[in-house]
Amino acid sequence: MPLGDKPGWEKSESRYCGVEAEFDDDIANLLSFNLNLGAFDFVVAPLMNPTYRPSLLQANSGGTCVLPFAGSDLVLSPSQWSSHVVGKISQWIDLDSEDETLRMDSETTLKQEIAWANHLSLQACLLPSPKGKSCANYARCVNQILQGLNNIQLWLRIPLTKIDDASMDGNSGELVDSWEQWNSFRILCEHHSQLSVALDVLSSLPSVHSLGRWFGESVRAAIISTDSFLTNARGYPCLSKRHQNLIWGFFNHSIQVVVSGTSLRNTAAPGSDLVTNHSSDNVENLQKHPLRSYLDYIGYLFQKMDPLPQQERYELGYRDFLQSPLQPLMDNLEAQTYETFEKDSMKYMQYQRAVSKALLDRVPNEEANVTTVLMVVGAGRGPLVRASLQAAEETGRKIKVYAVEKNPNAVVTLHSLVKLEGWEGIVTIISCDMRYWDAPEKADILVSELLGSFGDNELSPECLDGAQRFLKEDGISIPSSYTSFIQPVTASKLYNDVKSHRDLVHFETAYVVKLHNIARLAPPQSVFEFTHPNNSTTKSNERYKKLLFELPNDTGSAMVHGFAGYFDAVLYKDVHLGIEPSTATPNMFSWFAIFFPLRTPVCMKPGSSLEVHFWRCCGSSKVWYEWCVAAPTPSAMHNTNGRSYWVGL
Amino acid sequence: MPLGDKPGWEKSESRYCGVEAEFDDDIANLLSFNLNLGAFDFVVAPLMNPTYRPSLLQANSGGTCVLPFAGSDLVLSPSQWSSHVVGKISQWIDLDSEDETLRMDSETTLKQEIAWANHLSLQACLLPSPKGKSCANYARCVNQILQGLNNIQLWLRIPLTKIDDASMDGNSGELVDSWEQWNSFRILCEHHSQLSVALDVLSSLPSVHSLGRWFGESVRAAIISTDSFLTNARGYPCLSKRHQNLIWGFFNHSIQVVVSGTSLRNTAAPGSDLVTNHSSDNVENLQKHPLRSYLDYIGYLFQKMDPLPQQERYELGYRDFLQSPLQPLMDNLEAQTYETFEKDSMKYMQYQRAVSKALLDRVPNEEANVTTVLMVVGAGRGPLVRASLQAAEETGRKIKVYAVEKNPNAVVTLHSLVKLEGWEGIVTIISCDMRYWDAPEKADILVSELLGSFGDNELSPECLDGAQRFLKEDGISIPSSYTSFIQPVTASKLYNDVKSHRDLVHFETAYVVKLHNIARLAPPQSVFEFTHPNNSTTKSNERYKKLLFELPNDTGSAMVHGFAGYFDAVLYKDVHLGIEPSTATPNMFSWFAIFFPLRTPVCMKPGSSLEVHFWRCCGSSKVWYEWCVAAPTPSAMHNTNGRSYWVGL
Repeated sequence: MPLGDKPGWEKSESRYCGVEAEFDDDIANLLSFNLNLGAFDFVVAPLMNPTYRPSLLQANSGGTCVLPFAGSDLVLSPSQWSSHVVGKISQWIDLDSEDETLRMDSETTLKQEIAWANHLSLQACLLPSPKGKSCANYARCVNQILQGLNNIQLWLRIPLTKIDDASMDGNSGELVDSWEQWNSFRILCEHHSQLSVALDVLSSLPSVHSLGRWFGESVRAAIISTDSFLTNARGYPCLSKRHQNLIWGFFNHSIQVVVSGTSLRNTAAPGSDLVTNHSSDNVENLQKHPLRSYLDYIGYLFQKMDPLPQQERYELGYRDFLQSPLQPLMDNLEAQTYETFEKDSMKYMQYQRAVSKALLDRVPNEEANVTTVLMVVGAGRGPLVRASLQAAEETGRKIKVYAVEKNPNAVVTLHSLVKLEGWEGIVTIISCDMRYWDAPEKADILVSELLGSFGDNELSPECLDGAQRFLKEDGISIPSSYTSFIQPVTASKLYNDVKSHRDLVHFETAYVVKLHNIARLAPPQSVFEFTHPNNSTTKSNERYKKLLFELPNDTGSAMVHGFAGYFDAVLYKDVHLGIEPSTATPNMFSWFAIFFPLRTPVCMKPGSSLEVHFWRCCGSSKVWYEWCVAAPTPSAMHNTNGRSYWVGL
Repeated sequence: MPLGDKPGWEKSESRYCGVEAEFDDDIANLLSFNLNLGAFDFVVAPLMNPTYRPSLLQANSGGTCVLPFAGSDLVLSPSQWSSHVVGKISQWIDLDSEDETLRMDSETTLKQEIAWANHLSLQACLLPSPKGKSCANYARCVNQILQGLNNIQLWLRIPLTKIDDASMDGNSGELVDSWEQWNSFRILCEHHSQLSVALDVLSSLPSVHSLGRWFGESVRAAIISTDSFLTNARGYPCLSKRHQNLIWGFFNHSIQVVVSGTSLRNTAAPGSDLVTNHSSDNVENLQKHPLRSYLDYIGYLFQKMDPLPQQERYELGYRDFLQSPLQPLMDNLEAQTYETFEKDSMKYMQYQRAVSKALLDRVPNEEANVTTVLMVVGAGRGPLVRASLQAAEETGRKIKVYAVEKNPNAVVTLHSLVKLEGWEGIVTIISCDMRYWDAPEKADILVSELLGSFGDNELSPECLDGAQRFLKEDGISIPSSYTSFIQPVTASKLYNDVKSHRDLVHFETAYVVKLHNIARLAPPQSVFEFTHPNNSTTKSNERYKKLLFELPNDTGSAMVHGFAGYFDAVLYKDVHLGIEPSTATPNMFSWFAIFFPLRTPVCMKPGSSLEVHFWRCCGSSKVWYEWCVAAPTPSAMHNTNGRSYWVGL
C-alpha cells in the first residue's frame, strides 16, 4: 500500500515503494509474499531464469522450445503484471564483453526479455549497469530497442558514486564518477525520453553538489541497499542524516524508492535489547517480511515530510510544463487571466507600499491637501488603481487617477468597476495605448505593471519610454528599475519536451515554466537592467551581456540543457518585487521562471567554466533575444533575427 | 439542471437544455430567471444592446465611450459566463448588404462582440443566419476571426428547410436547401473545426434522408421554436412523431436542444380543460417560467430513451476516434490486446458452430473414431484451439490439433495454457510463421482468425495461401471466404481530425474507428472477395473494383468526406461473421469499421452519382490500397505505391 496519504502527494509516484527480488518461477507467490506480507507496492523481479543462455539452447533443441520465463500472462493478468512488477533484466548480460559468445547471448537475451516485458505491458524494466568503461554496444542495442518500444520505461541502473569518495589509490584509469557513465550512455541513445536512471544508493554518499546534479536528470527510482542503513538503539534500521535528506529529495522529485538486499537486523541490536529483540524477531519472522522494518522506516520518513502548502498544491499541474510567454501588448488578455493575477495580493501590497512612500516623499504633511496626479498605465481591470487609492487613503494624501488601458474589453470592466466603487470623481478611464495617448496634463507618479518573468520581456521598457512624455521632469516611475537574471540548469525533462516538437523554432523559444525537476548548477547572475524615467541621452533598449559561470568544485561534470531566467524589480526605494531565488518575494504567484533552451546540451567538465552571451535586440515591429554558449564548447547562435521567437511591439 | 441521469449519458452534451432570450442589460437577473425559475442549463443571450451602431457613435464621442454590453465580468464571474451563457451575436448584422454603412457597422460589431465573448471565455457564440444568397464577406470576416480565436465555438444558425417542403410557387431564385448555405459558408472557412451549426427546427420538417445528412456535420445545437410544438388534450405542449424522432437523433449525437419563442399554451387548450387550466395557469405564471412546460416535455423525451447497453457504454470513449489498424503480421500483439479480443464470446461461438458443422460433414457418425487433423494457424493465446476442442466434444469427434503461432511471447502463454488445461495429448504447439512451417502431416481443417475490419487488410489472403501447402486436397478452410464493403459517408469530425495533422500521410491512411457522428449516404457495396482454399490458376491477391453510388432522391446535396469500410466472412456454409451493417453479427466487438478519407471532400448534387475506384496492390514486402473518386468531380489518386499507408508482409 502507498507510503501514506499526504495533502498534495496523492498523485506523486514517490508514494509507492518497491522491493528488489531474486528469480522465482512462482511469480504469483513472489508477489503475494512481497505485497501482502511485505506491504510493498511493487516488485523489481527477474523475468527469466538466470541460468538461461541462448547459445546452450541452440545445441540441443531447434529453438522451438519455450523460454524459461517466470510465469506467463495466465499466471498473472496483464494488469497485475503492469501495476506490480518492474522487469529486472538478467544481470549477467555484458554486451561489451570481449567474449563473443557472451556478447551474442547478452544481446539475444536482452531483446527477448524486453519483448516479453512489452508483451506483458510492464511499465518499466531495470537494465543492469554497464560492466566496464565502454558501453557502446550495450547502448546501440538499447537504442535499437527504444525505437520500437511502446510505453515501457527503461531504467539504467547506476551506482551513486563519485571520485571524491572513491579510494584514491592507483587505478585512476577506472571510471569513478558514475554520472559520466550515465551521460555517455544517454548521449549514445540520443537523450531518448524512455531511457531513465535507477540510482543505486550505497552506504557512503558523494558531495551535496554532485548529488544535486541528478535532480535535473530523468531519475525514476532509487534502489537503497540494506547495507546503507544504520541500526538504532532498539535494533531497528534507520538512515544517516545525509541519507535522510537524500530520500526526502527523492520523494520531492517523484523518484520511487526500492529496498534491496537482506535484513541485517539480527547482527546489529546492542546487548541489552539483543535477547528480547532477537527472540521476538524469530517469532515475528514467521509471519513478518524480513525487509518490513526497512519499509516501515521509509514510510516513517515519508510521513515526516511537511504537507505541500496550498499554493504549491495549486501549482502542481504546472511543474515543468512549458508555456509560451504572454504577449499582452499584441494580444488582449482574457477576463479569467486578469482575475487570476488579481488574486496575487502580495504583489499589490508591495505596490501599495511603494505608492505610499512615493506620495509621502512627494507631498510633505504641511501640504497634504495638494492633489497628486497619478497615472496607472496598463490598468487592466483596475487592481493598481485600487492599490493606489488605498495608498492615498492610508497616507492621507489627495490623488487624481488616470487609468490608461489599451484593451477595450478590460475598459468595459473598468467602467463598471468605477461605477460599483463610486470612484467617478477621482478616476478617469482612458481607452488608449499609453504609447500614443495625448495626455491633458502631466503626471507626478506613473504606476505600471508590465513586467514578464524575464523583466523586460513583455516590453515594459518600450511602453514606459512611450509614457515618459507625460511624466513630469521630477516625476516618479513605479517601478523605478528592473533587472533580469539567468543561471545554467540541468533539465532533461524540459529538453525532451522541447525536442519532441522536432523543429528549430521550439529550440529557439523561451518558455514560462514552474521549474521543479531541474538542477541549478551555479548561482544566478544579472543580465539586463532598465531604469525609469530613462534620462540617458541614447535611449536605446538594446542590450548585450557576456557571463561566466563556474560550477562548485565538488560537483563533478554536469549537463547544461539551458538557462533559467528570473527578474527583480525596484518599485520605489527599498520596496522591491521579484522572483530571483535568493531575493524572491514570498507568496507571490504571478510569475513562474523563464527557460531558454540550448539546441545541443553542453557538458561541463569539473573546473571548466561556461561562457554565455545574451542579446536583447530591437526592430521596428518586434523585440527579441539571441543567445549562445562560447565555452567550453561553442553552440550555434540561437534565434538569429528573432526568426523563431519574438515579442510584437 | 441536466435533463436527467441515464446510464451512459453522464458525459453527453445533450443532457443540457438551453433557452433563447432577448437582450437584457441586467444579465444576472436574466440568468437567475431562466436557470433558477426556468431550470434551464444555459441561456443563449445577446451580448450587446441591439440598438448599438458604431457609425452613430463616431458622430458624437471620439470612440472612447463604453460599448453597451449586457453586464461585465464583474456582474458575473468569467466561470459563470462560460458555463451558463452562449453569446448571441446581434441579429441585425448583414455583412453582405449593399448598404456600405450597414456592412461596415456589421463587421465592426461582429468583431467587437466576439472579442468580448473571448474576453469572457464563453464556450460558444451563435452567429445569425446569412441574410441573402451570397455570404462571401460574412464568411471572410468569420474566417479572419477564427484564426485568432481561443476555444470558442462559433455556431452558424441555419434554418432546417429544404426545397421539397418549400412553397413551389415562383421565386426559384431563392436558396431553398439551407444545407447548401451551410456548405458554401464552411468551405469558404476551410472546414474550420471551430465553426459549427445550430439548426433552427421549424414546424414542418424536410425528408428523413435530407435530415440524415446533418448527423455527419458538426451540429452543436438545435433551436426548437415553440411554433413547432403541438398542444395535447390537456393543453400541454408536445411534438409530432417526426419531431420526436428528430429530437432523439439530436440527443444521440450530443446535440444540445435550445427552446426558443413565446409560450402558446393559453391559446390552445380545448374547451373543458380551458377554464381550469387557464386559471391555474395564471396562478402558476406568477412563479412559473413561461417555457417551463416546454422544457419539461424535452426532459420527458430524454427520459423516454433506452439506457445505453453495456457494450455501447464501454465503447463511448472510442466514438469517432481514429486508430491506426493493427499490423499483427509485422508487430507482435501484447497480452492485453489478446485478452481483450478473447472476451468476444460471440465470435468464438460462431467459430465453434462452424468447426462442429465441418467435423460432422467430414466424419459421418459410423466413422466417429477417425481422428481429424485440425490446424489453428495464428493461434495467439489459444481461443480458437479451445473453440475447436469444444466443437469436437460437442460433436463427439476425435481431433488432433496443431496450434501454429509466430509470436514467441504468445507461444509461452500457449504452453502454460496447454499445461493448465491438460491438453498435452491433443495439442501440439508450433512456434513458427505459418508461411514457412514445414508441417509433418496435412490438415483436414484449417482454422484461422486473421481478418481485419476491411477483411483482407491484415493479410489473411497472403497468410492462408502460405498455409494452403499443408491443407489436404479436399480440406476445409474456416473461414472459407470473406468480402469487403464500402459506403460514402459525411464525417466532418473525422475529416477535421485527419486534417489536423497537416500532412499528406494522414489523408492517405485508413483508420479503424467506432463510427458515430456520421451520415451514411448510400447503402454499402461489396469491394473485394477472397476464397479459401484458393484453387484459381493465377493466385494473385491483387484486386480492382469500380463502384457507383447514388444518393436517395430526397437527400438533396451532401458532402462525402470519405468511405466507411466493413467485412463479412463465411466461416463455413451458413455460419457467417461480419460487421457489414445490414448483416452484422450481433454483440460482437472485435472489429470497428475502417475509414478511408478523401484529401478533398466531394460535394454531391441531387441526382448526381459518385464513381469510386479501389485497388488492392501487392509488392514483395507490403500490401496496400489505392483509391480515388472519378465522378462527379475527380479527386487526386490516394496512396500511390503505398507511399503513406501499407501493411507489411
